[in-house]
Amino acid sequence: MKAAIWTGEGHSLKLSDIPVPDPAPGEARVKVAACGLCHTDLHYLDHGVPTFKKPPIVLGHEPAGHIDALGAGVQGLKEGQAVLVPAVLTCGECGLCRTGRSNICEKMQMLGNHIDGAFAEYVCVRARDLVPLPPAVDPVEASIVADAVTTAYHAVTHRAQIRPGDRVAIFGCGGVGLSAVQFAALAGAFVIAVDLDDGKLALARELGASETIHAGKDPEAVKTIRKKTGGGVDKAMECIGNPVTIRNAHASIRGGGRLCIVGYCEKPVEMAVNKIMFMEQDVVGSLGCRPVDFPRVIDLIAAGKYRLKPLITARRPLEEVNEAFDELRAGKSVRSVVIP
Amino acid sequence: MKAAIWTGEGHSLKLSDIPVPDPAPGEARVKVAACGLCHTDLHYLDHGVPTFKKPPIVLGHEPAGHIDALGAGVQGLKEGQAVLVPAVLTCGECGLCRTGRSNICEKMQMLGNHIDGAFAEYVCVRARDLVPLPPAVDPVEASIVADAVTTAYHAVTHRAQIRPGDRVAIFGCGGVGLSAVQFAALAGAFVIAVDLDDGKLALARELGASETIHAGKDPEAVKTIRKKTGGGVDKAMECIGNPVTIRNAHASIRGGGRLCIVGYCEKPVEMAVNKIMFMEQDVVGSLGCRPVDFPRVIDLIAAGKYRLKPLITARRPLEEVNEAFDELRAGKSVRSVVIP
Amino acid sequence: MKAAIWTGEGHSLKLSDIPVPDPAPGEARVKVAACGLCHTDLHYLDHGVPTFKKPPIVLGHEPAGHIDALGAGVQGLKEGQAVLVPAVLTCGECGLCRTGRSNICEKMQMLGNHIDGAFAEYVCVRARDLVPLPPAVDPVEASIVADAVTTAYHAVTHRAQIRPGDRVAIFGCGGVGLSAVQFAALAGAFVIAVDLDDGKLALARELGASETIHAGKDPEAVKTIRKKTGGGVDKAMECIGNPVTIRNAHASIRGGGRLCIVGYCEKPVEMAVNKIMFMEQDVVGSLGCRPVDFPRVIDLIAAGKYRLKPLITARRPLEEVNEAFDELRAGKSVRSVVIP
Amino acid sequence: MKAAIWTGEGHSLKLSDIPVPDPAPGEARVKVAACGLCHTDLHYLDHGVPTFKKPPIVLGHEPAGHIDALGAGVQGLKEGQAVLVPAVLTCGECGLCRTGRSNICEKMQMLGNHIDGAFAEYVCVRARDLVPLPPAVDPVEASIVADAVTTAYHAVTHRAQIRPGDRVAIFGCGGVGLSAVQFAALAGAFVIAVDLDDGKLALARELGASETIHAGKDPEAVKTIRKKTGGGVDKAMECIGNPVTIRNAHASIRGGGRLCIVGYCEKPVEMAVNKIMFMEQDVVGSLGCRPVDFPRVIDLIAAGKYRLKPLITARRPLEEVNEAFDELRAGKSVRSVVIP
Repeated sequence: MKAAIWTGEGHSLKLSDIPVPDPAPGEARVKVAACGLCHTDLHYLDHGVPTFKKPPIVLGHEPAGHIDALGAGVQGLKEGQAVLVPAVLTCGECGLCRTGRSNICEKMQMLGNHIDGAFAEYVCVRARDLVPLPPAVDPVEASIVADAVTTAYHAVTHRAQIRPGDRVAIFGCGGVGLSAVQFAALAGAFVIAVDLDDGKLALARELGASETIHAGKDPEAVKTIRKKTGGGVDKAMECIGNPVTIRNAHASIRGGGRLCIVGYCEKPVEMAVNKIMFMEQDVVGSLGCRPVDFPRVIDLIAAGKYRLKPLITARRPLEEVNEAFDELRAGKSVRSVVIP
Repeated sequence: MKAAIWTGEGHSLKLSDIPVPDPAPGEARVKVAACGLCHTDLHYLDHGVPTFKKPPIVLGHEPAGHIDALGAGVQGLKEGQAVLVPAVLTCGECGLCRTGRSNICEKMQMLGNHIDGAFAEYVCVRARDLVPLPPAVDPVEASIVADAVTTAYHAVTHRAQIRPGDRVAIFGCGGVGLSAVQFAALAGAFVIAVDLDDGKLALARELGASETIHAGKDPEAVKTIRKKTGGGVDKAMECIGNPVTIRNAHASIRGGGRLCIVGYCEKPVEMAVNKIMFMEQDVVGSLGCRPVDFPRVIDLIAAGKYRLKPLITARRPLEEVNEAFDELRAGKSVRSVVIP
Repeated sequence: MKAAIWTGEGHSLKLSDIPVPDPAPGEARVKVAACGLCHTDLHYLDHGVPTFKKPPIVLGHEPAGHIDALGAGVQGLKEGQAVLVPAVLTCGECGLCRTGRSNICEKMQMLGNHIDGAFAEYVCVRARDLVPLPPAVDPVEASIVADAVTTAYHAVTHRAQIRPGDRVAIFGCGGVGLSAVQFAALAGAFVIAVDLDDGKLALARELGASETIHAGKDPEAVKTIRKKTGGGVDKAMECIGNPVTIRNAHASIRGGGRLCIVGYCEKPVEMAVNKIMFMEQDVVGSLGCRPVDFPRVIDLIAAGKYRLKPLITARRPLEEVNEAFDELRAGKSVRSVVIP
Repeated sequence: MKAAIWTGEGHSLKLSDIPVPDPAPGEARVKVAACGLCHTDLHYLDHGVPTFKKPPIVLGHEPAGHIDALGAGVQGLKEGQAVLVPAVLTCGECGLCRTGRSNICEKMQMLGNHIDGAFAEYVCVRARDLVPLPPAVDPVEASIVADAVTTAYHAVTHRAQIRPGDRVAIFGCGGVGLSAVQFAALAGAFVIAVDLDDGKLALARELGASETIHAGKDPEAVKTIRKKTGGGVDKAMECIGNPVTIRNAHASIRGGGRLCIVGYCEKPVEMAVNKIMFMEQDVVGSLGCRPVDFPRVIDLIAAGKYRLKPLITARRPLEEVNEAFDELRAGKSVRSVVIP
């Protein structure tokens, strides 16, 4: 089968012909309909973050497709069925899985990180976490639900805990950030979206942001937010992973407010702990989404309450995966998918 | 009346004779039985943190005593009644007061900071927050409830959210830290107390800590905690306000764990935000305690479930307030009270 | 001034001329723009529920208007300003007010119940709970926010705790029920609305219900709900106060689900406590709304996220208040307002 | 092996010799050290509640023992190891297991109900939920942890949500009720225990109750509770399953309070829904305990914070299981265990 292989740092992906994998007991083989590209992939490709499985490895962790074959003992699924493959697969046995926090499973397997991913024609994964797709949801579009969309759902609902009438600032309008804008608006909040790109800010407004701020044009973006909200937002979300933005997001919340960090920042960040303490704020992280929550997100999409289409800015054949990554690096795309 | 006046940075307190204040409408005048000394006072005296009311000011925010006179319109209290005076008085009108977070009241008045405090024979305060003391509780001992004890109660119960069976690390065994040890044990947790003083660690064990670590003798205290708990504590509390300790407290929690910052640290602290995000942790601040919760703490004391005596290491006449501060600076006392 | 007086059981309201009341210290006098009619009024008029203030009493607890005069000591408000008057005024001092639950204030004063209400040209109330209205919100329409709309906001957000993607059944599509439908949809839920009136069900769909069930035409409404949702809704809300409906709403939730009782039912109801226990369900009540939350609701209205107009089915002069009540009794109106 | 078989309604248990069962893949065979007797067994024996597995069936769902043999594929356990067997075994795959509510698992298997239980020399169960016992905990005593103790832990901690300083009324001082008294006291609450037996009330005081009420001698027990607590307890727990007691427990809570129903009551109960609504109370059920929480309880026992011994009032050989049930029927025992 065709697969885009990463051989290690400094190399772009190489389209290769490798054997179709066979599903082990408890696994399913999925014929990939599409797989989204993510900033997490750039951590491996460009920033020296290692994958858990040593290269060569097939990257790609945002797939949907159709079940092609089932390993021994798998129940409740059948060949041909359209399914979403969560980016992170869970063990179901560890303390975190058993307390309802499977998104931070102690034995998580991330596609294209711990195991071979889905920039390929087929991918084999534990069957227990696969999520059936209803006919109303196109598997090619649904691929980005596997990470960008569900990560935002979890962050907005469970970690930022956004409620009707909340004032929320969302920093960063990439795939996850714009998904967060859409979910926060869907949850009844007033959203102020912040980014450096006019196009993305326009999209944020289309997806429900009440206001937008171009942080390049407004050097006092935090002050602007605090002024507009009479002292700071109830909740802020940082969807980039940049030290300055994290500090700005923190500075934008009110006393008793909540900052939710969704973007990954490798380096330590100087935080105003005096404000955390004296203004009794909450600073919380958010990672991925529990597979058990995926059906809710898919229902919201199927019902037209959440819109996928505006987030997918390019569809390319798998052969053009490196060009697609170039666009992502250049900030030209929100979410691109490749089709094997 | 006698009062210990602070005239500004670089000066110790000066015992003076000033007029007895009169209670304004809605206020009560309290004859002070005792007032505790707190590290917060050292922020003003030694570290350049200004008081809101410009000096000269009477410091002291941890008093109890007896009602001496009532201003116009005060109901439900009577002269002679023993009362505790919360360190921070609330407005009852702001958005935070009205949502059950009066401990971070937008218009808070802190004794010995916004208004004259209780290193004096009498103090006048808004009557609405005064808390009656039952006969079983000695006002002299109760004085430290006004800040050290209730701050720990609020932090343990509402912010660190300690529950039966939790594994908890508490960094810093001063007045607030030892109170936190005692409340966390009272809440059914396993407490690991960390400090640099053998005497305070012995007291921590007496007050319920399951284990103690002398951070000076064990240079790998965080590793020790993580090993003992199979990967990190459920919750950690920092009760000092030191950047290194805050980082260590953070490093001691597990995935999905919670760090509660109780100590005040003026400077920004480099925090491992990648762990907050990737391990989906909560970092929360805690400040003071709502006056509405004081009666619960007093009931716990009256019932003998919480012990005040071991925390009070010295009682001195008001005239020796500067000597008492010297002992606090030297780390020789847990909690001293002065008696006017 | 004109006022509609109730002289006690068995009597309809009598339009009278009574003195304009003067605001006491801390009070404001409001010139009433409009006042909504509520089923709670029918409890007094028709069902023998007594008012706390003995008749004669001016009924009416859902008003908005303009400040006409201020009593001594009132700050932050000015004459002429448009304001909403919450149906229930709070003391700010009791344990429930101080823990963020002022909607069940121990010393609550309800308009047209504990004190004279707003079926009149003027009404005097404690000023602390008045909520300014922005120019974008019409005081006549806003009157129903004082009870029907905010009661639903509180119930949906804080008590039923409805979150994006939840499946929710709402029983009863009167003023409060339809407001709950609208807020639940606004919070991102899938709403199944149940009523006996085709017109109200059509309005429920217009306001965001995904599905509706006419409980008169579908004798197996609960089974239908359980089937559609694969075993029961996540949350159900009962907005009538009828024993059968309360039981049906309970029967419609899943294991681990939540029933929120918003309707007032004087009589005890036989509840399946075995299900509450064995399926570990939550049955919670909801009453009114904290004044501190009103500005959020008003912001949602001003932004067009919540629509008032469809809920107001009639506007009548105060002189026709009895005819308006006849319509309410006949189930012909959702929410009527009278204009003095 | 020896086993106590139930052949159906109207029959007492019959000691029989049946084949030792073999563990299926994923299962473990446990040599039973002891198995506790529970009121749930009386539901089958005396009250016509059917078991899911049709008789003949081995009853008994409160065992501990030592691993005797492991089925294929079991990891992390070894023969000879002391283990506790939770009364209810979970699937790990259903929506409730995956959201941290495995105690109400949709596919739960209860020992001595869905599958053969532990009134026998050996029992075979899914290995995933077995909980290792440390040397400090005696397996014979630990047997009652499998149901009575952990049920109380879960109810107190997660469902009644008891916190330091809470005022709590606990109705019923059998095995579960006395465990609840002990855990509530351990969580820092003031407990008022209510029962009809002086001996059990004495034991309640020994285990931490601040006060006790003999409901037979005080016909106004609810009034007494409301008076002692200035208007009602914060939380009440009903550990019997009796309609009158459930109503009394409800009547004993304050506005905004919480009633936790732990006892199973087959019949519907007339509840004051007007109070639930108007006083905005929570009425919640509690069932069993998640296996993931068992190690915390065992740690509390191993540390001496929770005491098992006082709860075990009789130890008998398996041959005397019917006599042990007679004692339970007569209310003479708190918790008896049988030893095969």
